[in-house]
Amino acid sequence: MTLPHVIVVGGGFGGLAAIHALRHAPVRITLIDKRNHHLFQPLLYQVATASLAPSDIAEPLRVILAKQPNVDVLLAEVTAVDTDRKVITADGRELAYDHLIVATGARGSYFGHDAWAAHAPGLKTIGDALAIRRKILMAFERADLLNEPRERAKQLTFVVIGGGPTGVEMAGAIREIALASVPTDFRHIHPRDVRVILVEAGQDLLPPFPADLRASARKQLEGLGVEVRTGVPVRDIQAGVVVLGEERIEAATIVWAAGVRGSALGAALGAPLDRSGRVIVEPDCSIPGHPEVRVIGDLANYAHGREAPLPGVAPVAITMGQYVAQAILDDLAGKPHRKFRYLDKGSLATVGYSLAVAAIGKVHLSGVVAWLIWVFVHLMTLVGHRNRVVVFVKWAWAWAVSDRSSRLLWQDEAERDGASGS
Amino acid sequence: MTLPHVIVVGGGFGGLAAIHALRHAPVRITLIDKRNHHLFQPLLYQVATASLAPSDIAEPLRVILAKQPNVDVLLAEVTAVDTDRKVITADGRELAYDHLIVATGARGSYFGHDAWAAHAPGLKTIGDALAIRRKILMAFERADLLNEPRERAKQLTFVVIGGGPTGVEMAGAIREIALASVPTDFRHIHPRDVRVILVEAGQDLLPPFPADLRASARKQLEGLGVEVRTGVPVRDIQAGVVVLGEERIEAATIVWAAGVRGSALGAALGAPLDRSGRVIVEPDCSIPGHPEVRVIGDLANYAHGREAPLPGVAPVAITMGQYVAQAILDDLAGKPHRKFRYLDKGSLATVGYSLAVAAIGKVHLSGVVAWLIWVFVHLMTLVGHRNRVVVFVKWAWAWAVSDRSSRLLWQDEAERDGASGS
Repeated sequence: MTLPHVIVVGGGFGGLAAIHALRHAPVRITLIDKRNHHLFQPLLYQVATASLAPSDIAEPLRVILAKQPNVDVLLAEVTAVDTDRKVITADGRELAYDHLIVATGARGSYFGHDAWAAHAPGLKTIGDALAIRRKILMAFERADLLNEPRERAKQLTFVVIGGGPTGVEMAGAIREIALASVPTDFRHIHPRDVRVILVEAGQDLLPPFPADLRASARKQLEGLGVEVRTGVPVRDIQAGVVVLGEERIEAATIVWAAGVRGSALGAALGAPLDRSGRVIVEPDCSIPGHPEVRVIGDLANYAHGREAPLPGVAPVAITMGQYVAQAILDDLAGKPHRKFRYLDKGSLATVGYSLAVAAIGKVHLSGVVAWLIWVFVHLMTLVGHRNRVVVFVKWAWAWAVSDRSSRLLWQDEAERDGASGS
Repeated sequence: MTLPHVIVVGGGFGGLAAIHALRHAPVRITLIDKRNHHLFQPLLYQVATASLAPSDIAEPLRVILAKQPNVDVLLAEVTAVDTDRKVITADGRELAYDHLIVATGARGSYFGHDAWAAHAPGLKTIGDALAIRRKILMAFERADLLNEPRERAKQLTFVVIGGGPTGVEMAGAIREIALASVPTDFRHIHPRDVRVILVEAGQDLLPPFPADLRASARKQLEGLGVEVRTGVPVRDIQAGVVVLGEERIEAATIVWAAGVRGSALGAALGAPLDRSGRVIVEPDCSIPGHPEVRVIGDLANYAHGREAPLPGVAPVAITMGQYVAQAILDDLAGKPHRKFRYLDKGSLATVGYSLAVAAIGKVHLSGVVAWLIWVFVHLMTLVGHRNRVVVFVKWAWAWAVSDRSSRLLWQDEAERDGASGS
């Protein structure tokens, strides 16, 4: 007798939570991901701003799952799902499933302006983070050589679009590079020459936070010297130019942290999608007519009994992953499904070293206490014990000596060296 | 009165030693490098074999020199030197010098077979190391899926060409991945399926070492399961194929660690070159007819009063850098130059965890003692205090739990995700 086959697509927080919850289950699991690693997205901005190395926040999926014998890992991209035949296509190969968990997450969305992507990269993968790091560091290198005031000002202007946690963290971190590293590294640049502008179309930063913390985050950012521009929609983005209302801002570095939409696989399921391309799921996270197909995490629009759909954050994805694993166990045992419940434990966002906001139930915290909670929560939830130790050492070191030693550039070496392999 | 201008091209061991020795000198120094970081080459193979992250062994030049006010750092490539006008060209800009120190090192050499480079990449830059890491890890990913025996064997065959320290270290490290990571990470690969072949055209591995240590290194490698093939020249390299004498070996991963030649800038000086493209320098490291132009490190062929030219290793480069800095100080003071002296402190090479050879004067050591010396010397000479702590933590962790958590793949993400920035 062969065991039931559970295919999990996507090794993010949701997919891994489901697999972990099925560790003692009488099933065969195949995890399929187009990348070979789990990425700790909440700290990706620290790779982009040269505080951490890629390997500090990413852990190979095979390493994470090495001790779980009922899982096979497949490095491949799923391009099609046939829900009637219960078959997926991964890199041209067909695989049959009994249960399918789709947890492929979200990608950046430019709200229909796809041409903007070339000028304002998003921040979703390690490749994105290294490309943005390169842009930021090269802008300082170029400005250090320039005398012409307008071009120099353009190199030293950084625009971050989107006032959610990623945008706030990016803007604060770029401003901290200007304050901490620029004065020692670049002889001809003064921190006051460096302009960091955070743009948010809505009226406030960090919309899910309570009003007092939204105001506090803004005050902390402005204290670092970030220009916060809320209530201003982006009209256009061209190479090195952002148009805000009537104003044209010349900026060599533009980072997009504004919108996300569901990953492309969502549309392949034949289920209803919301305006952001997320799959509108049933109360048990399945899709209509196919109880054996479940969608979890950032790709799922789960609105049952709520004013707004559940937010695209790691705790929601983990809760959904654990829930659908339990539902599969219940199916195998012939038991009815329990009800899905999500308990919101609070929200955290950091602005910079010893600057943060935290909303934990009715308790609202700002500044260094919120920051210490942020540090603790992120260190404890980072995947991989070694990564926790290494990130702790790097953060402690950075705190002690104000140093950011990951600011390496290496992507263009191959081009410059030619094909000689030298 | 303007201070004399010293231009240093290349921020490796030699260039940095010269700059450090001039820290109190009444000169203006400009360091020009096409990369923004100093690279600790001796550990580059650990980035290629996924034990360390790029930022662990590289330190931004601006960070290293932040506290030396008489240095300016320029991220640019020097393409021409006019020794008569005393002017260099960097990224199209001309800069005049009073003293020039050329320390641009060496690159891989395929002994005239440049077409081999595409099939057998070398190991000189971070980009090279990440490309080789990708090849190694993808070979295991592919083999895990394959049933066809010949193609599977090809994916699991790794050929390292060159029996010097880099080749020995690479072969040992790949074999250790097979022994330590493969059994837990890949369900369908057994360590005995993984073939690692180290090829050396000469009669012995590690030619500069004494005979007993050469034999010991070979024995230690064979103990790990590496096939050592000495006295066999490579006849041809094609995509996935190495031809040794009459034998064709199919191998998905071929790494070139055999030859080096002087970097291209050496030929731009108008000085005599040896067969390897290195600049044949005068007894004071200058070039004939131009005492103000000095060549140091791997790019220099220094043979005065010796049987063979000084080897291309870090201690030689550092001694030369300190010497030419002193010569510049003597020139400024109107004093004659001292004589160049190099004291050989010994040689070290590692084969794997707790496996190494060390020749320190008449003392020859093998195995764990040599390895502990190797670990100590490399940790102490690594540039950047934070890097020492982080590398120590990673090595201690790897030693304690046999884990290699840097084995990440990320280079093809941009292609796979398309231009959406997602």
